[in-house]
Amino acid sequence: MNLSVIVIGDEILLGQVIDTNTSAIARTIGPAGWRVADVQTVGDDADAILTAIDRAFATSDAVITTGGLGPTKDDITKQTLIRRFGGELYENAEVLENVERLVARRKMKLNDLTRAQAMVPTSCRVIQNRVGTAPIMWFETPEGKVLVTMPGVPFETETMLPEVFGLLQRRFPSPDHFAHATLMVTDYTESALAEHLASWEAALPPHLHLAYLPQPRLIRLRIDGTHTDQAFIEAEVARAAEEIKALVGPALLADSDVTPAENLLAEARREGFTIATAESCTGGNIAHTLTLIPGASDVVAGGVVSYSNDVKMRLLGVDPATLDTLGAVSIPVVEQMARGALAATGATLSMATSGIAGPGGGTPEKPVGMVCIAAAITRDGQTNVVSETAYFTGSRSRVIASATTRALILATQLLRRP
Amino acid sequence: MNLSVIVIGDEILLGQVIDTNTSAIARTIGPAGWRVADVQTVGDDADAILTAIDRAFATSDAVITTGGLGPTKDDITKQTLIRRFGGELYENAEVLENVERLVARRKMKLNDLTRAQAMVPTSCRVIQNRVGTAPIMWFETPEGKVLVTMPGVPFETETMLPEVFGLLQRRFPSPDHFAHATLMVTDYTESALAEHLASWEAALPPHLHLAYLPQPRLIRLRIDGTHTDQAFIEAEVARAAEEIKALVGPALLADSDVTPAENLLAEARREGFTIATAESCTGGNIAHTLTLIPGASDVVAGGVVSYSNDVKMRLLGVDPATLDTLGAVSIPVVEQMARGALAATGATLSMATSGIAGPGGGTPEKPVGMVCIAAAITRDGQTNVVSETAYFTGSRSRVIASATTRALILATQLLRRP
Repeated sequence: MNLSVIVIGDEILLGQVIDTNTSAIARTIGPAGWRVADVQTVGDDADAILTAIDRAFATSDAVITTGGLGPTKDDITKQTLIRRFGGELYENAEVLENVERLVARRKMKLNDLTRAQAMVPTSCRVIQNRVGTAPIMWFETPEGKVLVTMPGVPFETETMLPEVFGLLQRRFPSPDHFAHATLMVTDYTESALAEHLASWEAALPPHLHLAYLPQPRLIRLRIDGTHTDQAFIEAEVARAAEEIKALVGPALLADSDVTPAENLLAEARREGFTIATAESCTGGNIAHTLTLIPGASDVVAGGVVSYSNDVKMRLLGVDPATLDTLGAVSIPVVEQMARGALAATGATLSMATSGIAGPGGGTPEKPVGMVCIAAAITRDGQTNVVSETAYFTGSRSRVIASATTRALILATQLLRRP
Repeated sequence: MNLSVIVIGDEILLGQVIDTNTSAIARTIGPAGWRVADVQTVGDDADAILTAIDRAFATSDAVITTGGLGPTKDDITKQTLIRRFGGELYENAEVLENVERLVARRKMKLNDLTRAQAMVPTSCRVIQNRVGTAPIMWFETPEGKVLVTMPGVPFETETMLPEVFGLLQRRFPSPDHFAHATLMVTDYTESALAEHLASWEAALPPHLHLAYLPQPRLIRLRIDGTHTDQAFIEAEVARAAEEIKALVGPALLADSDVTPAENLLAEARREGFTIATAESCTGGNIAHTLTLIPGASDVVAGGVVSYSNDVKMRLLGVDPATLDTLGAVSIPVVEQMARGALAATGATLSMATSGIAGPGGGTPEKPVGMVCIAAAITRDGQTNVVSETAYFTGSRSRVIASATTRALILATQLLRRP
């Protein structure tokens, strides 16, 4: 089943806000075999919105719009929807009650702009937005096509999507079944992996599809299958996943759609390890990536952002002589940082980074993108350290992201060693 | 001048990758008075790409596509462009040389898939992609419309955009001039600020436009102006910005388009302060946000991620009795953390957070979203601390982001105190 998305908002076209709602919608509907057929992003402009609605209905029977419903005056979506679907604005008592409740919970007072959120067209059915003041409106055309308006705020759309999608599924039941599997593969570049899997992939039956999603130091492989027989397609996808696992061997990081941080956290929790970080060039991003995950506090003890050499010595016990002789970006320093993180926090598994994130600071011997990475583990009273020097390309944020990913994978590989 | 964008890639429609190229394009072209008129996101599907091109040309004389050009076989963009613009594939010697150079620099070897990147249609002019293997292709229709293909990889598109946009500007010179100003305002909600500015905004002349871009604890106000007289529109935008500054008073965080972290870093550098962080619920995100900024190492000494109480005591000297009596999420604890960060790192300005990021861990007294935030400063040998308890709404990542923003603003406000 196809669904079309219309993203509404000048702020998106001006580049000031990045749309994440499309991704949230796609990830919510995908496992049920629904698919985003296309996305149109338009400004807060009545004619552009109307054209987009016509085009979306030409592709899909179900359309979701996001955005264009804030309290400030540049939001003209409701008036435009009345032009398309008819009716007139009225104050919906339930929406008003919801708006009043949310405003009270935020300890603010209701003003006219916020109260106006309760005005909705008579031509729609309202779905209560439990987490925001913009109402969710469900419109149907005489031909049975459906358009649902979701809020622009990502948290609101993400929270309300399961309920809205449940209603869409009941409205448009499907005979097709859908299965997918995701494998996270490291130690290959995209083209090396594609070459390695080429003959296997060429023999795939038409009901299966393989997609490569490369990230720095990691490739997400996704196997999708569609068929009317649910058991058959699930078995087919599972078989294909097992075949790829055999082909990639130890380069498999995970056999589900998890991030390296989620995977490391789960494996460390299962094995009874606690995690610490010692970050120079990644500047707190490894700790942040781990602690974004709910429940991280069971496993993450904490860490040190040792941006200056002074902090490396003070909090991580790095030897001043090593810093003097070899410089902060060196294997002995990151190894000392990784050990120091264990000593400072009492954790049993650590990662450390020191490198040149750029754009400045590079030299011929230590170019921008060079990062020394170490991981340390204490097991049965023994501490072991592994380390490597990696050369990443791209912007400062990309070097930081790549070094973060690689440090998490290095710690995972160390944890898996017997 | 309008420009249309076509984002190509199943990975976007499947929700596995979030498109950031549109935002990069919009931000590059905006200051020159160009505007993204619309964005269409389509899968790796020839018919969908062809329909999108026709629609884009109906709106705009200039079209940029991003994505659909990777080395793996699901990228069918080149064949589709040949269907639309004619010609046939040939191996372009300069592109091949560029591909070979990049592959050698990454210390990899050239395989057939990567070599195929050098195949381009005879109907296009090639712009060398200096930072990636996917060539940038410039097509023109007999009617003088232009379509340029940019890579999907954000770093490559961001790096190459200025050059590509320079060529587009020369191809489509414009009589219009464009000016804009951005003001960052804190201490107001969006609707409170809109109410405060309502009568001023109602009196704006038609060549000026005001947009609200709310973020947690911060509103970006953007004033845009378009006119054929450059000096006039620049003066008009500057005058409007001064009027808003007078209306918002001390709630002004910055009078340019900077993030709270960029602003704090610049102000601390100017005043000769060094920065440290002590993070519990934000888990390293404040340090990460600061160190993402090039040149942060002048100002950021480092910090501690004190996720566990043990680390709060060990590295920040938080008093165990305070933790026992009041709990980690309390004003005395964050104040001790902020002081402890200064003592541990030798820095002179610090921020500390401790809160309930959720989704679990809330209680009636300390609900999810409650965050205690402190900032400390050492000036003339005296250390001063400020603190507050904030209640944020939304998901775990949103609570972390909001607390990060608020901590950066609190430190900025402390730094500005006489």
